[in-house]
Amino acid sequence: MEKIPILRMGKFLLVTIQIDLYDRLALNLESDLVQMVSKTAAKGVLIDISALSIVDSFMGRIIGNIGNMSKILGAETVVVGMQPAVAITLIELGLELKGVHTSLNVERGMDLLRSIIDLDEPENDEEDADSSQ
Amino acid sequence: MEKIPILRMGKFLLVTIQIDLYDRLALNLESDLVQMVSKTAAKGVLIDISALSIVDSFMGRIIGNIGNMSKILGAETVVVGMQPAVAITLIELGLELKGVHTSLNVERGMDLLRSIIDLDEPENDEEDADSSQ
Repeated sequence: MEKIPILRMGKFLLVTIQIDLYDRLALNLESDLVQMVSKTAAKGVLIDISALSIVDSFMGRIIGNIGNMSKILGAETVVVGMQPAVAITLIELGLELKGVHTSLNVERGMDLLRSIIDLDEPENDEEDADSSQ
Repeated sequence: MEKIPILRMGKFLLVTIQIDLYDRLALNLESDLVQMVSKTAAKGVLIDISALSIVDSFMGRIIGNIGNMSKILGAETVVVGMQPAVAITLIELGLELKGVHTSLNVERGMDLLRSIIDLDEPENDEEDADSSQ
């Protein structure tokens, strides 16, 4: 398997990571996702990791990279579905998922994205943020 | 990997198949999905196969099984994201995906599900306020 599929759902993109990201796969995912964010003008990226029982520092860095790259292109990233054991390990190892939000599951992740996007830009296509309220 | 994650999105369930379904994995998926349909009272199941470059008769039968099992429990199944080459092969080999609908991508699959469900039961119980935009 050389590619992880990226599903478009309205303004959001959804990626389900089901296997360990080795080097090339991770790089492919990064570039595919960034291109997809750019092409679809997505406002949010959901990364589901419910299938992963381990998130190591490499994986954490890739997720962080995706979050930061997407941010530059105007999309927020939410990691969803983390197994409790993964959360424990992340904290115990002192790893941080920088640059991304987290949420319990896809539905809540979408709600979170909607609230973030609403905060960012109250009106749909209003690009000028010149009002001070 | 022993399990394929099943994501709940409102009234629908989404499964992204990224690897070939060998025996046990396929059986696990069938039972997980049927339990999930039952537990969440889902009205639709979306199976994304955009990562698959081959769909053989075994895979076709598993997908058909899922469709029929879900149907009994009140959920329609839509296969989305089929690669053109897969469609060609299915037809050339005379394989049919029985018991399931197909659609180009997840968004259209959801639209299809909504239209089917609307036809089935015009107004039942509104659980989620689904914003239409």
